[in-house]
Amino acid sequence: MQMPESPIRKLVPFAEAAKRKGVKVYHLNIGQPDIHTPEIALQAIRNFDHQVIEYSHSAGNESYRRKLADYYAVRGIGIEYTDLMITTGGSEAITFALNSICDLGDEVIVPEPFYANYNGFAISAGVKVVPVFSSIETGFALPDIEEFESWITPRTRAIIICNPGNPTGYLYSREELHKLRDLCLKHDLFLIADEVYREFAYDGAKPMSILNLEGMDEHAIVIDSVSKRYSMCGVRIGALISRNKKLMATALKFAQARLSPPTLGQVAAEAALDTPQSYFDQVIAEYTERRNILVDGLNSIEGVYCPKPKGAFYCVARLPVRNAEDFARWLLAEFSHEGYTVMVAPANGFYATPHKGENEVRLAYVLKAEDLRHSVEILRKALSIYPGRV
Amino acid sequence: MQMPESPIRKLVPFAEAAKRKGVKVYHLNIGQPDIHTPEIALQAIRNFDHQVIEYSHSAGNESYRRKLADYYAVRGIGIEYTDLMITTGGSEAITFALNSICDLGDEVIVPEPFYANYNGFAISAGVKVVPVFSSIETGFALPDIEEFESWITPRTRAIIICNPGNPTGYLYSREELHKLRDLCLKHDLFLIADEVYREFAYDGAKPMSILNLEGMDEHAIVIDSVSKRYSMCGVRIGALISRNKKLMATALKFAQARLSPPTLGQVAAEAALDTPQSYFDQVIAEYTERRNILVDGLNSIEGVYCPKPKGAFYCVARLPVRNAEDFARWLLAEFSHEGYTVMVAPANGFYATPHKGENEVRLAYVLKAEDLRHSVEILRKALSIYPGRV
Repeated sequence: MQMPESPIRKLVPFAEAAKRKGVKVYHLNIGQPDIHTPEIALQAIRNFDHQVIEYSHSAGNESYRRKLADYYAVRGIGIEYTDLMITTGGSEAITFALNSICDLGDEVIVPEPFYANYNGFAISAGVKVVPVFSSIETGFALPDIEEFESWITPRTRAIIICNPGNPTGYLYSREELHKLRDLCLKHDLFLIADEVYREFAYDGAKPMSILNLEGMDEHAIVIDSVSKRYSMCGVRIGALISRNKKLMATALKFAQARLSPPTLGQVAAEAALDTPQSYFDQVIAEYTERRNILVDGLNSIEGVYCPKPKGAFYCVARLPVRNAEDFARWLLAEFSHEGYTVMVAPANGFYATPHKGENEVRLAYVLKAEDLRHSVEILRKALSIYPGRV
Repeated sequence: MQMPESPIRKLVPFAEAAKRKGVKVYHLNIGQPDIHTPEIALQAIRNFDHQVIEYSHSAGNESYRRKLADYYAVRGIGIEYTDLMITTGGSEAITFALNSICDLGDEVIVPEPFYANYNGFAISAGVKVVPVFSSIETGFALPDIEEFESWITPRTRAIIICNPGNPTGYLYSREELHKLRDLCLKHDLFLIADEVYREFAYDGAKPMSILNLEGMDEHAIVIDSVSKRYSMCGVRIGALISRNKKLMATALKFAQARLSPPTLGQVAAEAALDTPQSYFDQVIAEYTERRNILVDGLNSIEGVYCPKPKGAFYCVARLPVRNAEDFARWLLAEFSHEGYTVMVAPANGFYATPHKGENEVRLAYVLKAEDLRHSVEILRKALSIYPGRV
């Protein structure tokens, strides 16, 4: 099978070359948070006292699944522990979902821009991704529901959303989710929601889980992960959640084929469930400040437009350039300001439709406030002299 | 996609019911070793001192990859660290291999009986498994090479072997591997070898890696895993190894889509590379004794035939029964001897051809010597009174 080359990956050699020249590169291109993993999770790893690191149950340790169901209950999401399965990161949960509901050649509709790796999971599963365009002009709100409907074919099996969204940071409203629900029920489609950024919502916003959409028990599939929530991307622990028993039974067979999710990661993830609310309060305060610095800073640059996201830790900005991929490469290969430059993710990699997002970039605000402030100034300087400016 | 129900899984409710009745069940059906994980690996976990559990490189930590290349060098297998990629267990390595070399609808030829989960990985990848029958009469030696050749079509992309073999324990000879090499070169096929049981070879036998087959640099793909080697199945760390640069570049894109293999597992696996040889010497001595007790014991039961395997920790035995799946269920549901019974894996689950292996079972010798001795006596007793005996 052929996998497309990601526009971000193509930049990596240029970033490495810049560093070899002694240029300091601020990485606005990636979503690896610098926030500390909760101490309680690290402590659980250090206290690991088994003599054999055994397989867990293919659906994950029962103790962790039960405790994780409690986590959802506290957030107003009522599920049984049997409605969830522990996966190797959110990545595997999407793969299991697609494998379980799709046959080769089936289609899934996804609002673009979307998390680029959905393409990889779809290719692996032999499934076709059908994009529906959402616009930076509306802040990446849900496209008209008629737009979705026009793309539904007999092969369509699901609509996939990411809420809060990577790469847009957009948070779908209750009304938007209700529209998606009605469409899915009308056409008997699954609604898959990647809700891994649930905890990252700002300005008092509360993301709604599709598990709380009435009448969707047989249709709603949630992808979750502890990677961002507890800043422990490396444990590779996610979850697949659905009240659809048949779906979960099918997914379990795929889970059994790969035997078990990581045992040590589950130890950390189970312990992390006791992380105090104060940890999240601090993290949200920190990200809110970072978002404000980055997004307000970007919008203060002439010709730049960046909708202010309400969730996750990304934003998509439109730049006054002909081609953001060229600009991103130029930032690394030809520009530096007092020994510094920035690495950004060209947004075209998040669109499936050719030529969409060509003057947009995705920026992650996972750096410290002062580094973000500095990054904005570097971008301001760069755009003021960039030859490809429009 | 539909995944077949494994015959072993179908037995699980019967095993649970037996335990609820107070019957002690010896699990000869699974490959979860009771051997301790090397202390050096457990210590590395307890000493984990990072403050953020971050993603690793998608191909794994470079320090681990370099040290793992040294491990192969010591075993006479010369590879660069860039020829190997760390995966989430051997399972993911097979998935990456299939995704990288096959398009949907392509075929792979596999001698049966084979590790049943190959079916799952093939279904996920949209690939068809074409079995070639190997017989218990020959101890599961490589089928005639003409037999393989007769199944090659324009869609055939690879031959997959497991060496030493699960479920058979068979160890392919140098001559057999040379025959496979010649066939793969003649028809431009990949040869994928699952070598995760490399360390488990008995009676002085030395498994030959396909990486040491001359002329196969572009064709040989090895699947590896630390699960059995260091008795740490739960870390979910494996490897994909090939000197074919194009293949590895394609596999890396699939690896990037899922971001990273488990970070904590890599910490344990890297540390485990310093496990002293004495650990393996003890383990091999232990498994040799267990194999002898189980296989010699089985062959001492009237009507039972079990070839003596030279590797891994499984054997396949032919029983004097009409249907081994019925017998396995009967052992759990209707039989016990002084409060004990055994759970065995019906071998039909390891054959792709219908009705093959129907009077065979796979037994894992991962229990202590005395438990294996007891298990043999339970099987002897059971077969002496089983109504479905032939």
